[in-house]
Amino acid sequence: MDQNKIPQATAKRLPLYYRFLNNLNQQGKRRVSSKELSEAVKVDSATIRRDFSYFGALGKKGYGYNVEYLLGFFRSTLDQHEVTEVALIGAGNLGTAFLKYSFLKNNNIRITKAFDADSSKVGKDIDGVPIFHVSDLEEELENIRVVILTVPASEAEEIAEKLVNLGVNGILNFTPARITVPSHVRVHHIDLAVELQSLVYFLKHYPLEKE
Amino acid sequence: MDQNKIPQATAKRLPLYYRFLNNLNQQGKRRVSSKELSEAVKVDSATIRRDFSYFGALGKKGYGYNVEYLLGFFRSTLDQHEVTEVALIGAGNLGTAFLKYSFLKNNNIRITKAFDADSSKVGKDIDGVPIFHVSDLEEELENIRVVILTVPASEAEEIAEKLVNLGVNGILNFTPARITVPSHVRVHHIDLAVELQSLVYFLKHYPLEKE
Repeated sequence: MDQNKIPQATAKRLPLYYRFLNNLNQQGKRRVSSKELSEAVKVDSATIRRDFSYFGALGKKGYGYNVEYLLGFFRSTLDQHEVTEVALIGAGNLGTAFLKYSFLKNNNIRITKAFDADSSKVGKDIDGVPIFHVSDLEEELENIRVVILTVPASEAEEIAEKLVNLGVNGILNFTPARITVPSHVRVHHIDLAVELQSLVYFLKHYPLEKE
Repeated sequence: MDQNKIPQATAKRLPLYYRFLNNLNQQGKRRVSSKELSEAVKVDSATIRRDFSYFGALGKKGYGYNVEYLLGFFRSTLDQHEVTEVALIGAGNLGTAFLKYSFLKNNNIRITKAFDADSSKVGKDIDGVPIFHVSDLEEELENIRVVILTVPASEAEEIAEKLVNLGVNGILNFTPARITVPSHVRVHHIDLAVELQSLVYFLKHYPLEKE
């Protein structure tokens, strides 16, 4: 299968499916219906069936999907055997929340280093992740290519530039700043204010009905 | 204009456009091109032009869009004149990050109350937002219909049920738990682990090119 043929919208749901199937497998469940999956991951079952059809996984009527088969498939698709090291830049409240977020410990991503501008935090660790000073990025970042950016908005652009110069090509930007990077660098941006404003907007303009 | 005719994907970008235009206006800028907008909000300019056409806002070639006109339009569309009160449930690291997130102070949403299970936090405030005990939700939630959920995953389902019974109809769920709610309650779910895993997946399978 040519993975570039998976639509991006489908690709975005893969980690979600993977985690739920992993939980099922750990509970000893052998099969799952698209309806159960749908209720658990909050994606409608028609979408799930379409998504799965891209991987050639076709559920059987009255049986559903084989959990182990799907899991093997997702594991290789998501490269669960290959660990990606990630650095956290900015160990404030949001950064600390990331470091303590235990669900990150179940998958193929490891936050191995954190950086902060506050010298009093340097040399300590949060949940086992050592904190370095941001001025030591050049020496300490090493082969890390993916970062989570949780610095103050005013610092975001300058630090992003520095990170890109050090070889970073993936940034999960949690600052409200929109950062400018070269074309080969992927930035996923999550803006807390925008998320909240969207929810409020949808509540007003797309009210849901009581069933 | 019938606002239900705006595609949801467009609706999701409105808060982003609004904030950028607001900044431009405060800087005294009178017009903006779709190219400038595109670079600032990281949405391609064809999409911006299509989005704006839904509102009947048509840019003029060589002039662009009138900032004040757009802003007036977005303000009424996003109901910026109508303040929505929001409660934060769970004043841990992530919750505290929300309370300190200054960009929330520029718009029509106010986090007016926070709730936590830790008695030592109760009676204090974070950036002016008072903290109450979760056991006082019934007395203190009052007319608040929208909440940000930043409690431990193990508590999420039970607290969500309680909130819905108290009249909440919008939940911004930042816990890794997928919560089950009645059909009239809107849940937007942001999962830190899934966001990070998506970024890593996209980096591997959709590498971007150097220009």
